[in-house]
Amino acid sequence: MSTRIGIYGYGNLGRGIENAIRQRPDLCLVAVFTRRDPSTLKIGTEGVPVCHVSDVDSFVDKIDVMILCGGSATDLPTQTPELAKKFCVVDSFDTHAKIPTHFDNVDVSAREGKKTALISAGWDPGMFSVNRLYASAILPDGKDYTFWGKGVSQGHSDAIRRIDGVLDGKQYTIPVEAALDAVRSGSCPELTVRQKHTRECFVVAEEGADKARIEKEIKEMPNYFADYDTTVHFITMEELKRDHGGIPHGGFVIRTGKTGRELENSHVIEYSLKLDSNPEFTASVIAAYARAVHRMYREGMIGCKTVFDVPPAYLTDKSYEEIISTML
Amino acid sequence: MSTRIGIYGYGNLGRGIENAIRQRPDLCLVAVFTRRDPSTLKIGTEGVPVCHVSDVDSFVDKIDVMILCGGSATDLPTQTPELAKKFCVVDSFDTHAKIPTHFDNVDVSAREGKKTALISAGWDPGMFSVNRLYASAILPDGKDYTFWGKGVSQGHSDAIRRIDGVLDGKQYTIPVEAALDAVRSGSCPELTVRQKHTRECFVVAEEGADKARIEKEIKEMPNYFADYDTTVHFITMEELKRDHGGIPHGGFVIRTGKTGRELENSHVIEYSLKLDSNPEFTASVIAAYARAVHRMYREGMIGCKTVFDVPPAYLTDKSYEEIISTML
Repeated sequence: MSTRIGIYGYGNLGRGIENAIRQRPDLCLVAVFTRRDPSTLKIGTEGVPVCHVSDVDSFVDKIDVMILCGGSATDLPTQTPELAKKFCVVDSFDTHAKIPTHFDNVDVSAREGKKTALISAGWDPGMFSVNRLYASAILPDGKDYTFWGKGVSQGHSDAIRRIDGVLDGKQYTIPVEAALDAVRSGSCPELTVRQKHTRECFVVAEEGADKARIEKEIKEMPNYFADYDTTVHFITMEELKRDHGGIPHGGFVIRTGKTGRELENSHVIEYSLKLDSNPEFTASVIAAYARAVHRMYREGMIGCKTVFDVPPAYLTDKSYEEIISTML
Repeated sequence: MSTRIGIYGYGNLGRGIENAIRQRPDLCLVAVFTRRDPSTLKIGTEGVPVCHVSDVDSFVDKIDVMILCGGSATDLPTQTPELAKKFCVVDSFDTHAKIPTHFDNVDVSAREGKKTALISAGWDPGMFSVNRLYASAILPDGKDYTFWGKGVSQGHSDAIRRIDGVLDGKQYTIPVEAALDAVRSGSCPELTVRQKHTRECFVVAEEGADKARIEKEIKEMPNYFADYDTTVHFITMEELKRDHGGIPHGGFVIRTGKTGRELENSHVIEYSLKLDSNPEFTASVIAAYARAVHRMYREGMIGCKTVFDVPPAYLTDKSYEEIISTML
């Protein structure tokens, strides 16, 4: 049973989805949709049409699952509800505070269109969320912690680039080892923002720019850097391209909790990711959930769903017999 | 909505279930069933009856989920299919090679009784299985590895105790750090049994026993020790009780895999457990799945299930609104 996929938006994530489909024989790419002039877009898969988003309606019967690859700030809040009326959809909406509202909007549309929609697939939200849920259900008397990194934060890198005199820059979020160790010890520490993560910036300044002023502006930037211990390195454009061209990321979800008649026994559950490419891993998670969405749709599970609703067996293309004999 | 639980068998696991129920306000212990004379059994929960297993039929309408706490070798292969005709059940059947047969037997019974049964809950099989499945669905071009320990292996400890001249003993399974590191590097090493784990034994010998002969018998024991690098320490009974009284365990499920157009990017997914008490953690997992089984039964999902069939949301007593706003 093949699942016919459409990709809606072709940036880093869209290209990641294209590659993830190539790794999965049961998924088939039908079309890529773009807001740009389609003739200007060259994609990686031969024979697959690039279409303008305005043509999407003509694919209603040709696509089983549309994967939305736009941004959470302005694209997905309108695109996902709109497309969920006509297609089964998966998105990676990742503005945690706005998930309940987004869920409600997508749910109304998906029910109206009698489609299955799954929002917030990826690793956080996504696999980290699933692990927070499993761990809290297993160890109710406990506390969980999420750490991110070492990895590139796109938003923080963008913030650096907006500073006067900065040509380019890359920001890494780094979890503090001592904080990780304290959490793993089961002592349930209360950790401030500053105690959990540090930030490291690699900055290319314009010739003659005031580096001291740039460094001060970065370190004192509210919300982005002011609450963290931040290190700033000035490097050349060549060094930036050579040493900081990737988009690595990762992180840790750790829950410690107690069991026993007197809660005398401690346990540590830890889930961690170390990713060479943040968008490609996110795409890999989404591809697995697209498979699940197609199956849920065929079984009549209509409306907005999340990773919390998906039985693990729905994520694989292997038969049930195979997974219980080889993975259970 | 409360879930009424019966405990069938009252050893380490049964006591763990009793404690896990105490930590979950939505679960309620109705009765403990034993093959022993019930009057000889003192349980930890006041006001809950201890009944003989022959009385179980009179509880058909009083128990929502029966949790089977017997052993996989001789108890569960007959008990789970038998009880699944009358009750929704959860067991922790952990003989990996025999899971498909056990599944089929339980499935026939559960369908006959129109009940929901869930087999092989715990951490391996159980949480480790779920993590193997998630990781392989996300990274199809990859390889996964399971390591156990550091922890006490009951079967290996028993094997030591059967040796002539041994009064008591405890065996620890220990993952080899170098193997863990090689796996995390993404190099996908082929590892022999000997390269993955070592075994450490703490033995109390009878006075005057031939320790050299005991050590040799342990190290050369086929299946149990011969394929491993094994260390044997002779200690006193006091030391054994003081330093080795617990039942700790744990382990690692690690999958590394590649993505990208040329599979040029590597990723590492790692799930690990560090447990003070193996039976209490197993019981904690089972308690969460008992809650899920009750819900699946109410929704008409009849037959034998595994952890692969359970949507994560079914494991928690928190509302869907709460989990999407606080955990997603």
